[in-house]
Amino acid sequence: MRVEVNGTARDIAADTVQDALAELGWAEARVATALNGEFLPSTARATQPLRDGDRLEVLAPMQGG
Amino acid sequence: MRVEVNGTARDIAADTVQDALAELGWAEARVATALNGEFLPSTARATQPLRDGDRLEVLAPMQGG
Repeated sequence: MRVEVNGTARDIAADTVQDALAELGWAEARVATALNGEFLPSTARATQPLRDGDRLEVLAPMQGG
Repeated sequence: MRVEVNGTARDIAADTVQDALAELGWAEARVATALNGEFLPSTARATQPLRDGDRLEVLAPMQGG
């Protein structure tokens, strides 16, 4: 299916947010996620379905500052 | 005052989240923010007071994937 990841359309086979992170290579990364503009807690990623046309934001803490 | 920024204690003079981002050098960065564990929309940063002991998370979209 097509999912918009950080503003870029991607082909994703995974059907949960957690599996999508793994597919994108971010399984081990310390990230925060938002789905369709709503914050998605890490504890909800395994059960959160991902659907065609969803917008997924994957964010990491800024370094330095 | 002392503010925990992405898990690290920092001395911050600014008294709003928006001014704190500028003080940290992230005024121009495309970032998302959370204050004390709650997502803080960018439109609320200018008026959101920052208090001693607050926990501020500043996040940016992951690259690649």
